[in-house]
Amino acid sequence: MDKLGLYTKFTAVEAQRETLLEMLLEAAHAMQSIEGCDLYVVNLPENDPNSIWVTEIWNDPSAHEASLTLESAKELIRKARPLISGIEQIKLRPQGGKGV
Amino acid sequence: MDKLGLYTKFTAVEAQRETLLEMLLEAAHAMQSIEGCDLYVVNLPENDPNSIWVTEIWNDPSAHEASLTLESAKELIRKARPLISGIEQIKLRPQGGKGV
Repeated sequence: MDKLGLYTKFTAVEAQRETLLEMLLEAAHAMQSIEGCDLYVVNLPENDPNSIWVTEIWNDPSAHEASLTLESAKELIRKARPLISGIEQIKLRPQGGKGV
Repeated sequence: MDKLGLYTKFTAVEAQRETLLEMLLEAAHAMQSIEGCDLYVVNLPENDPNSIWVTEIWNDPSAHEASLTLESAKELIRKARPLISGIEQIKLRPQGGKGV
């Protein structure tokens, strides 16, 4: 299994999480038509009022890299950047399981 | 969307990660028949030689709780416990996306 997994934590600028959430859900919607993206889920954590976690699984790492060069992705990053105070990311190599 | 998401980080006892990985893949296999479990993926992180991350999505939180009371789950926990030096978990509320 040569997939790529990502957990990405976006910390929102004070009082901007709701707006950032909407943008990330829009990004998730755009992912429907992106080949190579198996999973893109936008989550609110239980005990943190300022952050959003995105869970991604890509069927190969190059599909993920290619997606970042799309005009729609660049546009989203431009719009979202002022709302984000921090980004942390955990890169994973999925080994198997249910739903992949 | 009233789903439950979980990121669980298992830190393995020295030199036991491979064995723990096999056990978690076995658990993932058992999940195939568990109703309510949409996703159960076992991952190795890119920059940490001692840990394993499990990504779960449940279609409702009570299905997850019920799964922990299964004899097979208890048996797995009993077998895996000596191989684990630490567990951290992030609880999430999935808001939407692709693949859920």
